[in-house]
Amino acid sequence: MAVGLSPPRNVLAVPGVRLGVTQSGIKYAGRDDLVVMAFDEGATAAGVFTRNAFCAAPVILARRHLQSGGVRAFVINSGNANAGTGGAGEQDALATARALATLLDCDETAVLPFSTGVIGERLPVQRMVDALPQAVDGLDENGWQAAAAAIMTTDTVPKVVSRQVPVGEGTVTVTGMAKGAGMIRPDMATMLAFLATDATVGQADLQAVLQKTVSDSFNAITIDGDTSTNDSCMLVATGRSGVRVGGDNAGDLGRFADAIDDICRELAQAIVRDGEGATRFITIEVSGATSRGEARDVAYTLAHSPLFKTAAFAGDPNWGRILAAVGRSGVPDLDVGKVDIWLDDVRIVRDGSVDAGYTEDAGAAVMARPEYRVHVALGRGGDRTRVWTCDLSYDYVRINAEYRS
Amino acid sequence: MAVGLSPPRNVLAVPGVRLGVTQSGIKYAGRDDLVVMAFDEGATAAGVFTRNAFCAAPVILARRHLQSGGVRAFVINSGNANAGTGGAGEQDALATARALATLLDCDETAVLPFSTGVIGERLPVQRMVDALPQAVDGLDENGWQAAAAAIMTTDTVPKVVSRQVPVGEGTVTVTGMAKGAGMIRPDMATMLAFLATDATVGQADLQAVLQKTVSDSFNAITIDGDTSTNDSCMLVATGRSGVRVGGDNAGDLGRFADAIDDICRELAQAIVRDGEGATRFITIEVSGATSRGEARDVAYTLAHSPLFKTAAFAGDPNWGRILAAVGRSGVPDLDVGKVDIWLDDVRIVRDGSVDAGYTEDAGAAVMARPEYRVHVALGRGGDRTRVWTCDLSYDYVRINAEYRS
Repeated sequence: MAVGLSPPRNVLAVPGVRLGVTQSGIKYAGRDDLVVMAFDEGATAAGVFTRNAFCAAPVILARRHLQSGGVRAFVINSGNANAGTGGAGEQDALATARALATLLDCDETAVLPFSTGVIGERLPVQRMVDALPQAVDGLDENGWQAAAAAIMTTDTVPKVVSRQVPVGEGTVTVTGMAKGAGMIRPDMATMLAFLATDATVGQADLQAVLQKTVSDSFNAITIDGDTSTNDSCMLVATGRSGVRVGGDNAGDLGRFADAIDDICRELAQAIVRDGEGATRFITIEVSGATSRGEARDVAYTLAHSPLFKTAAFAGDPNWGRILAAVGRSGVPDLDVGKVDIWLDDVRIVRDGSVDAGYTEDAGAAVMARPEYRVHVALGRGGDRTRVWTCDLSYDYVRINAEYRS
Repeated sequence: MAVGLSPPRNVLAVPGVRLGVTQSGIKYAGRDDLVVMAFDEGATAAGVFTRNAFCAAPVILARRHLQSGGVRAFVINSGNANAGTGGAGEQDALATARALATLLDCDETAVLPFSTGVIGERLPVQRMVDALPQAVDGLDENGWQAAAAAIMTTDTVPKVVSRQVPVGEGTVTVTGMAKGAGMIRPDMATMLAFLATDATVGQADLQAVLQKTVSDSFNAITIDGDTSTNDSCMLVATGRSGVRVGGDNAGDLGRFADAIDDICRELAQAIVRDGEGATRFITIEVSGATSRGEARDVAYTLAHSPLFKTAAFAGDPNWGRILAAVGRSGVPDLDVGKVDIWLDDVRIVRDGSVDAGYTEDAGAAVMARPEYRVHVALGRGGDRTRVWTCDLSYDYVRINAEYRS
């Protein structure tokens, strides 16, 4: 069902990063569900995590270990989120990290755990610990695609994106992978995303670049408005290219940040394209707002409207549902007489009511496209925003009504 | 698909109120779609309207005419919302009101128009004006059930409720009808609700009673989070019983208000029970909040979570989705270690993680019920709230993907 999404191509290895996978039988039989990402000594790491108050045990631990510096590995599992599991869940996450630290001969705080899957069940720690040596044995710089497949839950396509960036005297490589198809309205990143580069970047610069980019990529997508307990986005710099980014050279940092932006936007869009049951990929643009927050309120109200999303599924230009969503989005003293609404290049609403030149056929032609843009011009200010979302189909209901059965 | 909802029984006529219906072919063939409610001279009226900024033309007009006092009739149509139609839409609504005023020989400002149905299409005014005499000819005190059926859109059951209230020296009757099954997250009432009583009540008292009751009834339900452009709730007092309510007698006003509360709650719940595609009727209770607003934020976040609603459809006690919704509801500094969650009498979460005594079977038994309660105890204050909602099924998608085709 993925909209305009192909399997990964041109995936580039990142010197200093090796990935290994294995089957530990957490939930799925006969498929990889456990990933080890190992980093050469001296790597720096940055992370952004969910804002859900019920954050999962691995998120608590990953955040803590990140602060202690000196990251050497991630251990990532699918099929079980280790969330809502209390103190026992934290012990489980720590036991897994500790087992990997022993295998890699590093400090346990240098290992960060990540989990995705069903909430509220204990991790099968022993099976995972037993399977870890096989993942470590298979560590390989070319392991990105296998790892991206192993972290999938209801995803239908693995998501990996690479870029090369000329920086100062050399070139650095950035590769990232992500997963997520439901419980997607990241108030951070969408469940799990991992990026790595061989650039040399200080931790403060790395964290700043990641934080800024996430707000325009992973934090600008929504599938169902449900923010996961496990959202995590990590960026690791191994320094193996010998090319330094940032520090005194702000221009290079900007170019590096652009590449990170690029990768995060493509991964974030890939998550929406592979949204549960998605048949349309919809860009919602809101302009003419008095603040970015106001623009986001309108964009998310529309992106979360079940009536708009079912009309999108039907390809029905029932623009009254768009107008109703804009009207209830809580913009104070909205002058509806100044609102214009476009579907791609077709203006459907002008000055708050149906455009005189609008025809149902023109609207239907746009909404039959697998990808289109809804643009709401509020006519009250200079701020704008853009979010990406998908439609609400039978398959969304099927996937989420059957996910645990 | 209506959950625990029977056709209306024991509907009581309200002296001074007559209702007539007719077929004007607005959208549906072969069914009534136009209603006239006529009131004896001297009636007082109160109204509460949608807070959607894009309120429909009839809402603009009804609000204006209500202010001019002296209500004599409502003209109500289904099949077309007359919303997003700008100045032309207002002219259409006025033309319909004017035609009825001529037939009833009253001032046009004494007639209030109401519309429900598809947004963005012009009203077929001529067909409606031509049909009005037949509705007027059929005016009858016993016309409530036919009227409740005529205002339905995707509703499957007409919704009418009556009460008799002993007040002071006499007894007054209150009867109300409502419609609505989708685009239901009233920020007022759910599309359309009309109540009438033969009590004598001053306009200020009537408006105060209505406003207070609506916040705990129609404003406490949600089907899909989408606020309609046409929500209107009207309460008319004809005074025909000769029994005065309010004024110096606060106790009587309280008893009268309780009956209005009762009717509005039953009608509001009927709307949820008849929610588009609904298979479960779910009461969400949030207690232990530091304010009523905080409790409502949590309750609505859960009530709007597509993941919770699809789990409810499946009867799957996937309580992690409840916990995740509570966690993302934006309560500042929520201490998850104090949160308890119950499904009816089964405690699933205690102190923020799964209750030691909880079994999947116990949770599944509750969620197999057609009606149950989810109780989230936040453990941080003394405020609470209650909202009613339904599940998200294949049929919700079907109904809303096909509504216009």
